[in-house]
Amino acid sequence: MKYGIAIFPPKKIQDVANSYRKRYDPHYALIPPHITLKEPFEAEDNKIKEMVPHLKEIAKETNPFDIEINKVSSFAPVTNAIYLKVEPAEVIMTINEKLEAKLPGKSEHSYVPHITIAQKLSDDEFSDVYGSLRMGGFELKETVDRFQLLYQLENGSWTVYETFVLGEG
Amino acid sequence: MKYGIAIFPPKKIQDVANSYRKRYDPHYALIPPHITLKEPFEAEDNKIKEMVPHLKEIAKETNPFDIEINKVSSFAPVTNAIYLKVEPAEVIMTINEKLEAKLPGKSEHSYVPHITIAQKLSDDEFSDVYGSLRMGGFELKETVDRFQLLYQLENGSWTVYETFVLGEG
Repeated sequence: MKYGIAIFPPKKIQDVANSYRKRYDPHYALIPPHITLKEPFEAEDNKIKEMVPHLKEIAKETNPFDIEINKVSSFAPVTNAIYLKVEPAEVIMTINEKLEAKLPGKSEHSYVPHITIAQKLSDDEFSDVYGSLRMGGFELKETVDRFQLLYQLENGSWTVYETFVLGEG
Repeated sequence: MKYGIAIFPPKKIQDVANSYRKRYDPHYALIPPHITLKEPFEAEDNKIKEMVPHLKEIAKETNPFDIEINKVSSFAPVTNAIYLKVEPAEVIMTINEKLEAKLPGKSEHSYVPHITIAQKLSDDEFSDVYGSLRMGGFELKETVDRFQLLYQLENGSWTVYETFVLGEG
C-alpha cells in the first residue's frame, strides 16, 4: 500500500486553499488541503502497525504550534505547482526529519512545508494564475495540534488511518 | 461546524464500494467509502474538544469486530439510495446508541449500518442499477478496529479530525 503523512490545517485555511484548488488542482477531490509531512511511500500492508508507535513518539515530542500563511510561492521551473507558503518552517521541518529517519522511503526532493493550491497547469495558465496570486496577500494564522497517517485507495484518493495529537501521541 | 462520525472500512471494502460510487454516487469525491455511525450534526466549533472524551470512552468500551458484506439493499421508496448491507449489525448499533446518547443532534431515521454506493439516481436508473446489483453477490469479510470524527468543509467535503481506536480509545 502507499502511505502518506500530512497535516490537515484548521478549517479556515482548508476553505481558503479549496477556493483555489477547486479551479487549479486536479487532486482537489482526492484529499483535503494538507501540509505533506513526508512524501508518499510504499510499504507492505502489515507494516502499518509498526509505524504507529514511531508516529506516536514523534507526536508526543512535539508541542502544538502556530502557523502563518502570508503569501504564495511556486516550485517552477521544476513543476508548475503553486502553494501557500507555511511559516515558520522549523517545527515542521523537524517533524519531517524525524519521519525520514524512522519510516521507509526516502524523499528525492529537499523538503519545503507548503499547501499546494494549483498544479499540472499549462505554462500560460501558470504564469497567469501565479502572477495574479502573488499580487494579493494572505493573512492566515492558526494552531496546528495534530497530524494524520493516510493510505491511498485504488482510485488515487486518500483515507485517514490514524490521527496523532501533538503533545499526546 | 457540521460534524460526522463514521467508520472507514478496510481498504478492500473501500475499493469495492468506490468501483460503484464512482458511477452512481455524487458524494464520491466528498468522503471515502464509510459506515455512518451517527448522522451529521451541527455544533459550535469549540464543542469539538468536549466530544473527544466521550468518543474515547465509547472506543475503549468496544472491541475490534468482524463485519461481512454479502449483498446490497436499498432505502427505496424513501430515497433511491443503494447500499452494501453490513452484518452483523449489533456492535455497530450499540455504538450508534451510545453516540446518540452522548452527542448533540438526534437522528430522524431509524439506524441501519450501511455503506452507500449509489444515491440521487433517477427512478429508471435506480431500477436498472439495483436490479443488476441484486443479481450479483458480495463476499467481503474484514475487521473494523477504529472510527473517525470528521468535520465538513465549505465545499461539502469532509476532513478527519481524530481517530478512535477500538479497545484503546
